[in-house]
Amino acid sequence: MDIQALVRELKVRNESKIVLLVADGLGGLPIAPNGPTELEAAKTPNLDKLAAQGVLGSMYPIAPGITPGSGPGHLALFGYDPLKHIIGRGALEATGVGFKLGPNDVAVRCNFCTLDPQGNIIDRRAGRIATEESAPLAVKLRQVKIPNVEVFVEPVKEHRFVVIFRGRGLGGNVTDTDPQRTGVPPLKPQALDEASQRTAEAAQQFIEQALTLLRYQPKANGLTMRGFAAAPAIESYEAVYGLRAAAIAVYPMYKGLAQLVGMEVVGAPATLAEEIDLLKKVWPDYDFFFVHFKYTDSRGEDGDFAAKARMIEEFDGIIPRVTALKPTVLIVTGDHSTPAKLAAHSWHPVPVLLAAESCRPDGCTAFSEKQALQGGLGHFPAVYLMPLALAHAGRLAKFGA
Amino acid sequence: MDIQALVRELKVRNESKIVLLVADGLGGLPIAPNGPTELEAAKTPNLDKLAAQGVLGSMYPIAPGITPGSGPGHLALFGYDPLKHIIGRGALEATGVGFKLGPNDVAVRCNFCTLDPQGNIIDRRAGRIATEESAPLAVKLRQVKIPNVEVFVEPVKEHRFVVIFRGRGLGGNVTDTDPQRTGVPPLKPQALDEASQRTAEAAQQFIEQALTLLRYQPKANGLTMRGFAAAPAIESYEAVYGLRAAAIAVYPMYKGLAQLVGMEVVGAPATLAEEIDLLKKVWPDYDFFFVHFKYTDSRGEDGDFAAKARMIEEFDGIIPRVTALKPTVLIVTGDHSTPAKLAAHSWHPVPVLLAAESCRPDGCTAFSEKQALQGGLGHFPAVYLMPLALAHAGRLAKFGA
Repeated sequence: MDIQALVRELKVRNESKIVLLVADGLGGLPIAPNGPTELEAAKTPNLDKLAAQGVLGSMYPIAPGITPGSGPGHLALFGYDPLKHIIGRGALEATGVGFKLGPNDVAVRCNFCTLDPQGNIIDRRAGRIATEESAPLAVKLRQVKIPNVEVFVEPVKEHRFVVIFRGRGLGGNVTDTDPQRTGVPPLKPQALDEASQRTAEAAQQFIEQALTLLRYQPKANGLTMRGFAAAPAIESYEAVYGLRAAAIAVYPMYKGLAQLVGMEVVGAPATLAEEIDLLKKVWPDYDFFFVHFKYTDSRGEDGDFAAKARMIEEFDGIIPRVTALKPTVLIVTGDHSTPAKLAAHSWHPVPVLLAAESCRPDGCTAFSEKQALQGGLGHFPAVYLMPLALAHAGRLAKFGA
Repeated sequence: MDIQALVRELKVRNESKIVLLVADGLGGLPIAPNGPTELEAAKTPNLDKLAAQGVLGSMYPIAPGITPGSGPGHLALFGYDPLKHIIGRGALEATGVGFKLGPNDVAVRCNFCTLDPQGNIIDRRAGRIATEESAPLAVKLRQVKIPNVEVFVEPVKEHRFVVIFRGRGLGGNVTDTDPQRTGVPPLKPQALDEASQRTAEAAQQFIEQALTLLRYQPKANGLTMRGFAAAPAIESYEAVYGLRAAAIAVYPMYKGLAQLVGMEVVGAPATLAEEIDLLKKVWPDYDFFFVHFKYTDSRGEDGDFAAKARMIEEFDGIIPRVTALKPTVLIVTGDHSTPAKLAAHSWHPVPVLLAAESCRPDGCTAFSEKQALQGGLGHFPAVYLMPLALAHAGRLAKFGA
């Protein structure tokens, strides 16, 4: 029995409130030998105070050595084994723009591109067309009609949009049409199994009609498709944990991930301060709050150590506003490490901080990777974070008599 | 999905070099209350320097409390779950003498023994017959002919030799014929399943013909069989990890184990210094280097604490020659613990040291069991060592988007 199945059996409901604050890509590396990590370099008086009250741990998202993408990283934080629940990129993108995927849907990410008169790709991103120009074109593609298949088209950002095919018997195993280079035409979508045959045909019909609709466009006169994906079958937070869960995030990807596990995406905050405003506002209405902060990851991906440390300080700054709400359990962590030194996601464990009345003190005095190694939660896979949160919230019954 | 299957999907190739230095039976115990372990007693300035640069961990070969033999211990180090990949003793012995086992082979370890005129065993090891005497006898047994079964006989050492039966439909589940005591005749080989019926028959025919061939021998006029084993189906290092791997070892057993996972056994070194000479020589030709040092285990098995500590010091002495080659990732560990206090393999975790540019500092300053407990790699099963090595070598792609 996996841990989530066990938790589902043991869950109880109460009045507790759980907050999961995720600083994306939080874990880091020293930029100089024997130097501090970004988290250790940042001044984080509020997190340090919380670390002294709570308990720390060193968490690996998937398994030692494995670097997660945002999808698997968040699924693991939410307690869903990312090796069992594979979410295709198309499905992620669709939920990210607020589209609720159903069981008969196949979603696919699309890029507008520029084709020459021979049909070869000149620009794979249509000159990085602005959202104001591209969004109406995506809406125009809603005119495509395919027999027995319902088609939805949603603008995303710049050259990106998403198409959802809805109908019985549509499999999600179809090849990408993006050839990943210029000077050649887009590839044809091809089914990788019998069940995906009709999806590939629908995709081909979509492409043909779209080319007609786009033919006079100067930049976006073509498209490519990537990451075909059927909706994953995932049990909701309510069903598994008995939690009414709210997701507060700026970026579509994280809203999408939260929605996939049945969280309600609330509001449309644009900054961390607005996210906390929103947290306060919806506080009475939910049991669980996922709050996502993107910029720690972004600055890590930029390779900018100092900027990432500053983002951590900004993040630290909102902690008193969260603790003022008196959550029963407050967790602060990341979905993975994004060391500026590597300018990429990495496999290094992520420090995690859990503060609750029922914490057993572990002697840690500051929130850092080094102290997290010695923390009371030990070294553990991320899928155990939700059981720990529920336990500290008094939401798990005893197992066995 | 197990971790090795995941790693196979995520592997990428690059120019990095990974070295796995194994001091067999490295982990120890204090011989006196509150004293140091062998590793802690030994002067290891080079390993300590490396520990300060890299990251430590406390590794259990199989699971907490389980004492591994050499086979499972090394399989785990190589990343193959030893509970899934069971290698019979016969298969190990055959590969250990350089015999390449195929999918239709069943190997079995044999001992020459001395029989009295009634066919009862007088000496289970034929008076510990010298290799010079026994090897020609093993070769003589190649005269055995069995219909539809190809027979190979390979001398090993002293009273030991190995027989390989090759043919379609030969199962490996046959009982030992060694009664484990004297004064009784050898047992008859018996099949434990339908698929091994023909193997048992072939073994019986082998024994009958061998007794005729050996009948005038003063010491080795009989034989016993132990550890029947079909060749295990194991995917190669190249297939799983994308690594061209070289194995450098003195002892046949470790060469055999390395060969089973598709490493190339290079050279025939007789000392640790020669092993490192060889490492330097073949450096350009491989991506991964397994270097095995036997004598830490041997002195542990002898129960000689001081001698084991001296062996660790000898091992420490070659570290600068290895670091001079500038490996991308250098791992130093053991396949299990062999505390002199117990004079045997044990279940205690093994300290592991991983040094690479991408290590996150963990505050450790010396290579010891005690510091390893606080190390950044935490406490982990040995099958995660290869994923960690590959990650630090930049040889694993991100999992999921």
